[in-house]
Amino acid sequence: MRVITLTTDFGATDWFVGTMKGVILGINTQVQIVDVTHEISPGDTRGGAFALAASYNFFPRKTIHVVVVDPGVGSQRGAIAVQTANYFFVGPDNGVLSFALSREKIKAVRQITNEHLILQPVSNTFHGRDLFAPVAAHLSKGWPIQKAGPATKGFVKIDWPEPRRRWRSIVGEIVYIDRFGNAITNIDPEALFAPTESPCEVLVKHNRLCQLGSFYQAVSARKPIAVLGSSGFLEIAVNGGSAAKKLDLKIGDAVTLQRKSLQNPSSS
Amino acid sequence: MRVITLTTDFGATDWFVGTMKGVILGINTQVQIVDVTHEISPGDTRGGAFALAASYNFFPRKTIHVVVVDPGVGSQRGAIAVQTANYFFVGPDNGVLSFALSREKIKAVRQITNEHLILQPVSNTFHGRDLFAPVAAHLSKGWPIQKAGPATKGFVKIDWPEPRRRWRSIVGEIVYIDRFGNAITNIDPEALFAPTESPCEVLVKHNRLCQLGSFYQAVSARKPIAVLGSSGFLEIAVNGGSAAKKLDLKIGDAVTLQRKSLQNPSSS
Amino acid sequence: MRVITLTTDFGATDWFVGTMKGVILGINTQVQIVDVTHEISPGDTRGGAFALAASYNFFPRKTIHVVVVDPGVGSQRGAIAVQTANYFFVGPDNGVLSFALSREKIKAVRQITNEHLILQPVSNTFHGRDLFAPVAAHLSKGWPIQKAGPATKGFVKIDWPEPRRRWRSIVGEIVYIDRFGNAITNIDPEALFAPTESPCEVLVKHNRLCQLGSFYQAVSARKPIAVLGSSGFLEIAVNGGSAAKKLDLKIGDAVTLQRKSLQNPSSS
Repeated sequence: MRVITLTTDFGATDWFVGTMKGVILGINTQVQIVDVTHEISPGDTRGGAFALAASYNFFPRKTIHVVVVDPGVGSQRGAIAVQTANYFFVGPDNGVLSFALSREKIKAVRQITNEHLILQPVSNTFHGRDLFAPVAAHLSKGWPIQKAGPATKGFVKIDWPEPRRRWRSIVGEIVYIDRFGNAITNIDPEALFAPTESPCEVLVKHNRLCQLGSFYQAVSARKPIAVLGSSGFLEIAVNGGSAAKKLDLKIGDAVTLQRKSLQNPSSS
Repeated sequence: MRVITLTTDFGATDWFVGTMKGVILGINTQVQIVDVTHEISPGDTRGGAFALAASYNFFPRKTIHVVVVDPGVGSQRGAIAVQTANYFFVGPDNGVLSFALSREKIKAVRQITNEHLILQPVSNTFHGRDLFAPVAAHLSKGWPIQKAGPATKGFVKIDWPEPRRRWRSIVGEIVYIDRFGNAITNIDPEALFAPTESPCEVLVKHNRLCQLGSFYQAVSARKPIAVLGSSGFLEIAVNGGSAAKKLDLKIGDAVTLQRKSLQNPSSS
Repeated sequence: MRVITLTTDFGATDWFVGTMKGVILGINTQVQIVDVTHEISPGDTRGGAFALAASYNFFPRKTIHVVVVDPGVGSQRGAIAVQTANYFFVGPDNGVLSFALSREKIKAVRQITNEHLILQPVSNTFHGRDLFAPVAAHLSKGWPIQKAGPATKGFVKIDWPEPRRRWRSIVGEIVYIDRFGNAITNIDPEALFAPTESPCEVLVKHNRLCQLGSFYQAVSARKPIAVLGSSGFLEIAVNGGSAAKKLDLKIGDAVTLQRKSLQNPSSS
């Protein structure tokens, strides 16, 4: 059975996700449909892009990832289907696929225009149901991606906030806050582990010092700690609590990883 | 694999939906179980009826739709299984199935009384698990609906608020507000498109004018627009925002679709 | 198809549950994955233990129950896989499995140490994805539990608050409040039905009398009632409302079931 994942901003209150699944199962019942999340903030393409990038490569090869965070639905924004070395991606061409695609070897990018693949009449407000779900279902049955529509060279990209590297420090920022209140930064393991020849320290908001550790309970209860999180990025946490609440952290807040000045203890 | 859908007011916090699925899979593991929504307001049979009606016909033929919004569980209210030309429906006989059934060609309506089909002992507080789940699972294995219990003629219906049609206008109301704050009305496409020979305009609360358009971004950001929504009804939206919040809309608020008076520009 | 259930405190906002499913499906696509709940309060091992105990035995035999409420992830706390007469259980050794295990006939308890069974490199913050999901997936393919790691005698247990039995009464407490505001107690059917030779009454907070009944609508609208709930425990409810709100109930509040003093009507 092939796997189709769904990442949307549809929430759980309405029937939107359910009808997408109904459309998929009407085309292919021998499929595993997995919800990644439907709680992306309405219209937050950056949040959707991050959730996809953090999860897509834990799925089996040939999984079809559908992402519908689509404030421009019905407008002239494009719709694309992308094949990479390992996966398929389907969604609006508004950048929501771009964080994941930047890590993948791209084989084909197709505009979705084939009217025989999609639900008729197509609504102007719900392409998740009428367009992306049927395309994903057909791909899961082995239809070649070329049937989706004509090849296209590029696709819309959302800028990833690269951390700034300095001599003794890396200045990044918080890019996501999870349900536990852990604040995920854009500082990646390479940045994190390069300066291991000397001990590091982490500064968050108002230059508050945050101990580096390898798991949440490495500090005592209610104390902050910086760990290498499961998404592969440096993460600010509080043992048994919410770092976002305790440290009043928000997306965009700066986080600095810097080497300790062991050689010169008098430096501040 | 047959499909069983679940629409309930059980929420996601407790184990209620999970146990319904456990009971179904104990009877038939070769089934696709799809959540339509579990966030119907507790006891809101009208909300459940609307969610079912908006979603059921996007599922493949022979899908079994289970709806459990059941404030009278354990009382003398009936429990029914219904076969239509295309689908099966299972739930309490309190009207929650009635919006969907009013659009379907009904083949059989059966009271659920067969004790061999249901979990023993039946609790008096959770028929979703003990009664509706096992009946749906047996139907998914091909058991004839006649085994559920004796035929019954009628079933409880919830009144659908029909819009009032006047000479130059249609007066409807808001029947549902979705997660994006879009306000879905009871004004259907026939009403919407009949007066296309002359341009239309939409009035909501306090006679605020709302432009008609075909997709959300047809107006500039944060502006209201009335579109034909994906449920098949006229829908009041705000581009990139919540119409419910911005226009202070509530279920029951009047919405008027009226022809513009092109012939007599001096009329108000 | 085998069934794997997931009970966690991961919530629905992030991609954590989705990636667990991706890992499972990468090992075995022929499996039914069922969410019990992901809304256990962060780190609330007692709440997770109760949700599992209330639901696990409604699933088919050989179901693999995975529970990840794991505030000590990455620390020295153990990870276990347990086989009982009917089920498998996988999770951290912090007591979250213990309410369910106390009702089961245990066949084998194994520490999870086999590095070939688990995702490499194992993160220190997400064993749900890297350790428990793959172990469950391998068990669903028929791998013997002995492959998980060495046998271990005991496992961590959370104390269940036993109700105190007196001559004419049983004093229990509220152990869970569900989405409807129903307050589930620790008073079980045996306690409930033993004194049926004489009528009973139920006292909650501030000695407020609560009528015993067999279903919610056995009292008039908005009135409190005590029923035998679907989890098998005495439950305080309000017909058509929230008992927790109306009676201001909290987990830990005392609930007393006592025999009515029929023989001596003058006693208070």
